[in-house]
Formats: sequence, C-alpha cells, structure tokens
Amino acid sequence: MKTTHGRRDFVKLSLAAGVPFALAASPEPSAGTGPRTDDEELSFFDVIKNRRSVREFEPTRIPEEHITQILDAARMAPTSGNQQPWKFVLIKDRSVIDELKEACVQKSLQVRAARGMEATPEVAEQVAEGLQGYFSAPVYVVILTDGESRYPTYNHWDGPMAAGYLMLAARALGYGTVFITDSIPADVTKEVLNIPDRFTRVCITPLGVPVAWPDTPEKKGLDEFIVLNRF
Amino acid sequence: MKTTHGRRDFVKLSLAAGVPFALAASPEPSAGTGPRTDDEELSFFDVIKNRRSVREFEPTRIPEEHITQILDAARMAPTSGNQQPWKFVLIKDRSVIDELKEACVQKSLQVRAARGMEATPEVAEQVAEGLQGYFSAPVYVVILTDGESRYPTYNHWDGPMAAGYLMLAARALGYGTVFITDSIPADVTKEVLNIPDRFTRVCITPLGVPVAWPDTPEKKGLDEFIVLNRF
Repeated sequence: MKTTHGRRDFVKLSLAAGVPFALAASPEPSAGTGPRTDDEELSFFDVIKNRRSVREFEPTRIPEEHITQILDAARMAPTSGNQQPWKFVLIKDRSVIDELKEACVQKSLQVRAARGMEATPEVAEQVAEGLQGYFSAPVYVVILTDGESRYPTYNHWDGPMAAGYLMLAARALGYGTVFITDSIPADVTKEVLNIPDRFTRVCITPLGVPVAWPDTPEKKGLDEFIVLNRF
Repeated sequence: MKTTHGRRDFVKLSLAAGVPFALAASPEPSAGTGPRTDDEELSFFDVIKNRRSVREFEPTRIPEEHITQILDAARMAPTSGNQQPWKFVLIKDRSVIDELKEACVQKSLQVRAARGMEATPEVAEQVAEGLQGYFSAPVYVVILTDGESRYPTYNHWDGPMAAGYLMLAARALGYGTVFITDSIPADVTKEVLNIPDRFTRVCITPLGVPVAWPDTPEKKGLDEFIVLNRF
C-alpha cells in the first residue's frame, strides 16, 4: 500500500484529537485498483471481504451509470416499515468539495484553539495536508436521514444500513469509500451544504478509484463474537 | 406469496400497537425458495435487489457452514477505528426459541393491559398465532453492540451495518431474514437470553428458508433521494 506523508500526519493529528481510525495492517496491496471491467466481476462474498476503508484516491472520473448504480443499491437497504428516510447529497462540483475542505481546516483550528492547542498557519497547513487524502476523490456522498420521515425514531437503524450498502456497491464496481464522521464534522457539512436541521447526517464518504487497496486490518476471530443460545 | 392468517392477524395487532412493518406489495412470489446451489449463485447486485423481509419460514435445517459464512460476513462490516464491537447471540436450541416466543406473548399482554386493552386468554392465543411466522425459523441471531467497546459512542453506526451485512449474506445463500425490533422487544430478549446490561441490542432476526420470497414493497424513485451538490 502506498502511504503518503499526509495520511501519516493526519493519523497523528487524529490521535491527538482522540479520533479513532482504522489502520491498515501491512504495507502489501491486496487487490488491483480501478473500476472493474465486466470480465472481473467480484462474487458477493468477495465484495464483502474486499471492501476496505480507503483514504487516498486517483482523480479518475466515475461514469454516471456507476454513481447511479451505487446510489440505487443504497436505497435497497432494510428500512423500518418501508419508510426509506434517506437523502444522498451527491457532490461532484470540485468547488464545493474544496469549500468543504477549507471549512474543515478552519473548524479544526477553532477546536484546537478552544482546547489551548497551537493553531498557527503552519498547523493549518498540516491539517490541510492531513485532509488531502480524504479530499482527493472526484465524488462525495453525504448520507442523511430525514427527521420528518414516517418513523423517525427508527432512522438510526435505517441510516447506517444504507451507508453499508452504498460502500459495498461501490466496492463491487471497483471504487473505494470510507465512513467519515469526525474528520469532516457533521456541523461543517451541514453549514457548507445548507442541510436543513430536520436531517441527521449518518456520514460522508468519498467515492473514487483507490491509489491502492489497503490490506485487511487485523480482525478478531469469529468465535469471539458468537454467544450460543444465551449468555 | 403465501400469506397466513397468523401473519394478517399480527399485522392488525401491530397496527393497533402503532408498530411499523413492511407490507409486501403483491401476492406474487418473485424468486425461488431454498438455499442456493452452486450453479445458481446470485451476483452482488442481484443479492442487493432480492433481499426481502421474510416473516414465515420452512423448518429446513441450515448447514453449519452456511451459518458460519453468514456470521463471518457480518463481522466484515465497516467499524469505527476497527473496534468490532459486536456480539451475535446464535440461537439454535428450539426450547430457547419457544421460551422467547412465550415471553413475547406475556409482554404483549402486559402492554395491552397497561393500556387498558383486552388481555384475555383468547387475545393471548391471537398474539401467539400472530407471532407464529416470526418464530417459525430454525435459527435466530440477536445482534448486539458492547458498551465497553473501544469507541462505544460509535456503536450506533457499527451495529446496524453488521445487521445489514448479515442479512445480505443470508440472502446470498438463499435464506430469509427480517430486522425485528418491536415485535420481539429488546427487554424480552435481554431477560430470556441473560444479556448483560452493557450490551445494546440492534435487532433480532430469524434465519431460514422462506415459505415464499415476498415481492419488493413499493419504493420511492431514486431521484427522490438525491440532492446535487448542496441544498
């Protein structure tokens, strides 16, 4: 896996701020990059196994039909009473993406200043560099749930499931994603994208061809998760 | 689709209690039943399109390797900082399943009585009959997140994503599931299965061969979900 200095710096910054992140386990790439061609379709379980959190992207354009197929899959997620409470903000305009990035840098400086941490122009540059990978994709999707849906108290289940579907569908077509929460804060997203208060953000994800597919992070054994019949 | 009286009665009872549910759109089955054989493997996007909420099951035994494959897929869901905060209570013991059902009936009667609704033995029988479909599967999985995980404030995202993965993996192998919340209440599950307080239940799902695959419920158009660039 190619790992940029920006990514490493960001990890350090994230750690300093107490933000969790998934570390790739080793520097070996585990799969080829690039959107799939028809002769290399992944099986269902290969998609499951090979989805990774991707944090650096090629600028490669994504065909419109792939974006449609990915969002179309997301809306097939299980949903309480068939309410389908989702909105997907699809960001393709580079100037909006850049605005979001700049707002993240400013927010990060504010948070640091409020905590008595250094917030100099040098730090701003470091933060911007750290965010570079996250903001290197050609397309972003903000996944929202609508507080005025039919059963809003069930949205907290429906929202993440649509995100999970979206990320799998992207992987099936050869694209990387990552479930971003703190690194691009919800309030920053809401302000820059004029998202009305009735919506709750699930996450924002970049969508693009990975510079490399990270390896699977170290995982617990399956038996650590299973409780047979009852505790 | 074969629809039992029990199911219809339960729908009525659920409605009376204000519980949402997904109605199948039409009485036509949309796909064959039964676990897949190797020559009819579904593509990734076919799995996405053909997962349905299933509420009536054949008693057909599920091979151990399928259960393993399904749970193994669930734990591949995106997880904050790779924390993997899940537990899967795998219920295969019929007496535990029956105990859970009986506890649901009793709970339902208590709730009805507290609301001044009828709670006679006849109602108990109706409720039990209404739950029959949900309790007709050979296997159940309760999906939990652990409040003592590394980043517990992120569990509300990780939990539903694992549930979504589990349900897709089940569909890929020919099994039905349904994301149950109210119909088998969290507190009943916790009591019967001795689930410690530190765990939060995401949902419980049956796992089994559907009596029939319900049709896709009526869905909104894709364009209703998409906001381009910003609001």
